[in-house]
Amino acid sequence: MTLPLVLVTHAPPDYIRDVIREALTGVAEVRFLPDLAGDARSGALKSARAVMTYHPVRDLGFPAMAELGNCGFMQCLTAGIDYLPLGDIPGHIAVAYNAGAYAEPMAEHVAAMALSASKRLASEHRLMRDGEFNQFVTTKKIAGATCGILGYGETGREVARLMRALGMNIQAINRSGQTDEAVDFIGTLDDVDRVLAASDILVITLALTTKTDGLIGAARLARMKPDAVLVNVARGEIIDEDDLYAHLRNNPAFTACLEAWWIEPVRHGRFETKHPFLGLPNVIASPHNSAMTEGALATAARRGAENVARFLTGGTPKFIAGDDVRMV
Amino acid sequence: MTLPLVLVTHAPPDYIRDVIREALTGVAEVRFLPDLAGDARSGALKSARAVMTYHPVRDLGFPAMAELGNCGFMQCLTAGIDYLPLGDIPGHIAVAYNAGAYAEPMAEHVAAMALSASKRLASEHRLMRDGEFNQFVTTKKIAGATCGILGYGETGREVARLMRALGMNIQAINRSGQTDEAVDFIGTLDDVDRVLAASDILVITLALTTKTDGLIGAARLARMKPDAVLVNVARGEIIDEDDLYAHLRNNPAFTACLEAWWIEPVRHGRFETKHPFLGLPNVIASPHNSAMTEGALATAARRGAENVARFLTGGTPKFIAGDDVRMV
Repeated sequence: MTLPLVLVTHAPPDYIRDVIREALTGVAEVRFLPDLAGDARSGALKSARAVMTYHPVRDLGFPAMAELGNCGFMQCLTAGIDYLPLGDIPGHIAVAYNAGAYAEPMAEHVAAMALSASKRLASEHRLMRDGEFNQFVTTKKIAGATCGILGYGETGREVARLMRALGMNIQAINRSGQTDEAVDFIGTLDDVDRVLAASDILVITLALTTKTDGLIGAARLARMKPDAVLVNVARGEIIDEDDLYAHLRNNPAFTACLEAWWIEPVRHGRFETKHPFLGLPNVIASPHNSAMTEGALATAARRGAENVARFLTGGTPKFIAGDDVRMV
Repeated sequence: MTLPLVLVTHAPPDYIRDVIREALTGVAEVRFLPDLAGDARSGALKSARAVMTYHPVRDLGFPAMAELGNCGFMQCLTAGIDYLPLGDIPGHIAVAYNAGAYAEPMAEHVAAMALSASKRLASEHRLMRDGEFNQFVTTKKIAGATCGILGYGETGREVARLMRALGMNIQAINRSGQTDEAVDFIGTLDDVDRVLAASDILVITLALTTKTDGLIGAARLARMKPDAVLVNVARGEIIDEDDLYAHLRNNPAFTACLEAWWIEPVRHGRFETKHPFLGLPNVIASPHNSAMTEGALATAARRGAENVARFLTGGTPKFIAGDDVRMV
């Protein structure tokens, strides 16, 4: 019996190839597009039943996408797919995103940023270099404080698991306004103002969609506690860049932990900010690397391949992109 | 019936006075030495059955200490009492330290420092300011890694509780080499080399004693993993200052999180280091403020007062200073 073909559009290192092949053992034959040329390439595109990809436009291109006549399923390996022109992908191909693929390392990164800000680590280090030794400066207590989580999906729930373990109360927002987990409050985007006002630490783990683009502007920042910590590990566009900069300038006790940026290399080819955020003492910046712990890429590849296996074996693949994740 | 007198040697703010009075309601009358003058002061010193103090030498002095004829118990409010000349305190007074008084805030501070170092927050922020955006730089995974804890007392166990909640394995050192808690290894100071070698994050929560002074020198630092994170929230003197500086210079992937210093304001009247630690990219520094979350001073006062109540009501007070905590 011939196994269906899964075509991977990039050339991962060997250990990742092994992870993908292992997850699809007995289910599919796996080929890697950059290994193929001429007729072999063309034949693989025509016969592939499913595709695994980081960036179909960049790695495949529209002419190659048009050749995917037998393909019913495209598994993206990134957690967010706001950069994808979903409307331009052939209609017979269901597109799945890799939700939660990086949930564990991202949640650890969120905890690191939130704690670092709460304990004033960067600020006091800087002041020590300037000759101040503030032994009696008070810092935020984590246990008993409230962590708001906008986007209570795979990553948001993993963030909640860690913050709850540190003694925090959780107030969260998701699409349904419901959860089986132990939270102090759960609601929908209609309840975002309430969560903003209650949060000592506010974490954004939302997908970027038409509903979340520009969600946090000046009026909503003004609802937050003056000494709150805002952590964005989702997409820069969810926060208004001008408004955040003004808020940080006017509220020195407020801290922004920025891991996701408005213009950044992988999505836009360069890193650029409209304002000098990196020069503010109340900003903690990281280069959108929260997913990058050792083994994280293998975990993401395995989760993606397992979802492809669900499709090929007649199961129900997860995280199919529908109107609700339509990107801006 | 006249209640015994508890004399507090400093003048805390009202909310702390209330905490102390409440913990001793029905057990003792509480007076604050700076409120008293002349005969009232002298009478209070002579009749006090117990004393609560931050620093008896500074706040009381030896002449006043000699007047404490009726006093059987001195409760220090600091967790460490290595700065106390125990041999010079009148022999009829048992001295208790306030172990674990700041365990919760200190453990949160440890988690903040350890995570901040593991996730390269300070380093990558600095590199972003220099124009590098390292989206694919790998950081340390916390879940499944090993946290070594030198000093598995009140504070060490609270550190373990948080680090375990983040998914870490715990290897610990205490006086008995035994614990009822879920650890992967527990031993005594004889086993310190083994714990050093196994640790991804090593936390020092030891008391400074003749046995721990200079415990960590060049040879022991060399046993640690090259990319380990060392967190000292105890006393600077436990680590050899010259050796640590050399180790940090020679091992750029190694990070030291320094909250306790060799020469620091409260203990020595000034902050001073022999080497420019604050200029190293692999140092995270804080001004020995880990205890200072809101409410922490009240918690410490309450715990101290509760220990005084144990003494006055014929119970067994905790944390009496014996030969095993004899300071250097």
